[in-house]
Amino acid sequence: MEVINDEFYMRLALQAASSAAGQTSINPVVGCVVVNEGRVVGIGAHLKRGEGHAEVHALNMAGDYAKGATAYVTLEPCSHHGRTPPCCERLIQEGVKRVVVAATDPNPLVAGRGIKRLREAGVDVTVGLLEEESRKLNEAFNKYIMTKLPFVTIKTAATLDGRVATRTGHSRWITGPEAREAVHTLRHRNAAILVGVSTILADDSELTTRLSVPGLHPIRIVVDSKLRTPVSARVLNGEAPTILLTTESAPAERARELEAQGAEVIACGPGPRVDLALALKKLGEKEIGSILVEGGGTINGSLLEAGLVDKIMLFYAPKLVGSEAPSAFAFQGPDRMGDALELENVSVEHFGRDWCVTGYPSNRAKPE
Amino acid sequence: MEVINDEFYMRLALQAASSAAGQTSINPVVGCVVVNEGRVVGIGAHLKRGEGHAEVHALNMAGDYAKGATAYVTLEPCSHHGRTPPCCERLIQEGVKRVVVAATDPNPLVAGRGIKRLREAGVDVTVGLLEEESRKLNEAFNKYIMTKLPFVTIKTAATLDGRVATRTGHSRWITGPEAREAVHTLRHRNAAILVGVSTILADDSELTTRLSVPGLHPIRIVVDSKLRTPVSARVLNGEAPTILLTTESAPAERARELEAQGAEVIACGPGPRVDLALALKKLGEKEIGSILVEGGGTINGSLLEAGLVDKIMLFYAPKLVGSEAPSAFAFQGPDRMGDALELENVSVEHFGRDWCVTGYPSNRAKPE
Repeated sequence: MEVINDEFYMRLALQAASSAAGQTSINPVVGCVVVNEGRVVGIGAHLKRGEGHAEVHALNMAGDYAKGATAYVTLEPCSHHGRTPPCCERLIQEGVKRVVVAATDPNPLVAGRGIKRLREAGVDVTVGLLEEESRKLNEAFNKYIMTKLPFVTIKTAATLDGRVATRTGHSRWITGPEAREAVHTLRHRNAAILVGVSTILADDSELTTRLSVPGLHPIRIVVDSKLRTPVSARVLNGEAPTILLTTESAPAERARELEAQGAEVIACGPGPRVDLALALKKLGEKEIGSILVEGGGTINGSLLEAGLVDKIMLFYAPKLVGSEAPSAFAFQGPDRMGDALELENVSVEHFGRDWCVTGYPSNRAKPE
Repeated sequence: MEVINDEFYMRLALQAASSAAGQTSINPVVGCVVVNEGRVVGIGAHLKRGEGHAEVHALNMAGDYAKGATAYVTLEPCSHHGRTPPCCERLIQEGVKRVVVAATDPNPLVAGRGIKRLREAGVDVTVGLLEEESRKLNEAFNKYIMTKLPFVTIKTAATLDGRVATRTGHSRWITGPEAREAVHTLRHRNAAILVGVSTILADDSELTTRLSVPGLHPIRIVVDSKLRTPVSARVLNGEAPTILLTTESAPAERARELEAQGAEVIACGPGPRVDLALALKKLGEKEIGSILVEGGGTINGSLLEAGLVDKIMLFYAPKLVGSEAPSAFAFQGPDRMGDALELENVSVEHFGRDWCVTGYPSNRAKPE
């Protein structure tokens, strides 16, 4: 049974924030709940970059009830003039008496300023309630704001023996409909999806989001060092932007043909292979804050070995396909078991007959 | 909170039964609880083959309180004279008024006879309470009693990419202490443990049970087609019986040397490899009712492809070691994903940082 307390209201604010995951571009998701004398009087979330912050929406809903109220905010209210006026001032102006904050701003240069401003104005401020939940919700934002690099999540669908296809390359389907629906939710929530050209050549994948309700399509990124993507490929169908990552040695004529189909071609290094670290830097410069990698074993292995992966989500089906089948992670690996690449903060979630193991590679570059 | 009802007492009986798993040889584990007017008056379990049945122990504890009582039994009371007199007669004789049975005898030739006899004597009998739990507890017995073949459980400890060592063969340790303790519990509960000779040559494994409390050692079985096990191997240390499965083409002189060290050498087929199906038949004839396979990828793969595996327990550590490392299951596998070997009734349990995926291969021979 639920118990009404600070945590109850903060969970509601987190839920409101979470609902907008995938639609705020490089902005964080934020939720706000305003409560006055035992009644919820305002609920808000930041919904779109450049538009109202969570506090503003919630205070607008609250109207006169904001006076003397408590506001629960999942992220420290802003104190600076950005695309919108500072939320701190609005909270003070509306007469909010108490503000409960889940997490401070991830940027240490500005963290605490909003809280300081509120306290100076006589507002009672509590900080750190459900902080971890809030930080997790914005894990991509937290990396991007500090590094200008996209948060990289590798997603695989594998058998119990870690294989992504049979020995003949046949792979449809490994996991069931529930797991596949979860993957499309990940596409909705990530700014971009990245695959190798072999996925395009083998499956002519569209790489759009297909859910039981409308979803947002990610920007489609194909790692294609020789620009082998056919001009007729479905990934160029215009449903969402398409970026082809290639090398300086790729044929210029092909680049022009593919650009004529609407693709953006970005050369990353001299070749023969795409410089993936450089590619992430360039994608970050284009304000792509999160990338879901649905590549094959080679891309997965290369990204992983290079320490470029922030998160791994491994969907497993209860099947075995044998040792001649291709692996989800093609890389050489260490000599000693003690040097194995470890996942941290591992969790296991079930999806129908399948389940997903989520973790954070220990060799990832950490912002702090 | 617990609620006192039939299920409560049957769970206690199942717990008593479960405590003896591993110590009843080819007999089932059975628990019995006797309750009289709201008080537990007897608790019993079958503890050792050839000794008292669960009902007898519980009725002995109950003494005069058995009269008019209800007995909860996890398996249908026996109605035939075996090594001990029939439990049905004892229940009737003690004046038990009601008997609640979880599962009937797995042997369809005798199933229901005990229940019929009780009812004829005027005892109120309820059947099927927590039946599935009881059958699962005796899954090995249920197979053996019908087929005279041991119940085969493959246990592996692998990385997330399904590897049992690094590319150099280094494997200590993959999983953590909690998972390893669980594995030693499996050794305690299985009649025998089976490995390939390569495990003996690589690690000089002792294959005994090491728990924080005394445990029962399984019979140690080594698949050794050419009898390469060294006479000085620790698996021959006499801590428990050792069986070497070999072929008719193995050197007779080596067999004599190893027998002199206390090993039993059993030839299974002409060679060059041990005929595993024949081996299981011969081990069943020796009243080995359950085998825990801790073999390498080759033995695991061979047993699995041949449909000889009843259960798989895959322990996973949150690590990746790359695609050059050896697989937990070395076999060719199917061409199409739809033909992958599937696991049924899958469950996931956590052990420290690791977890175990348990399932039943869809290609196993089913007794019914």
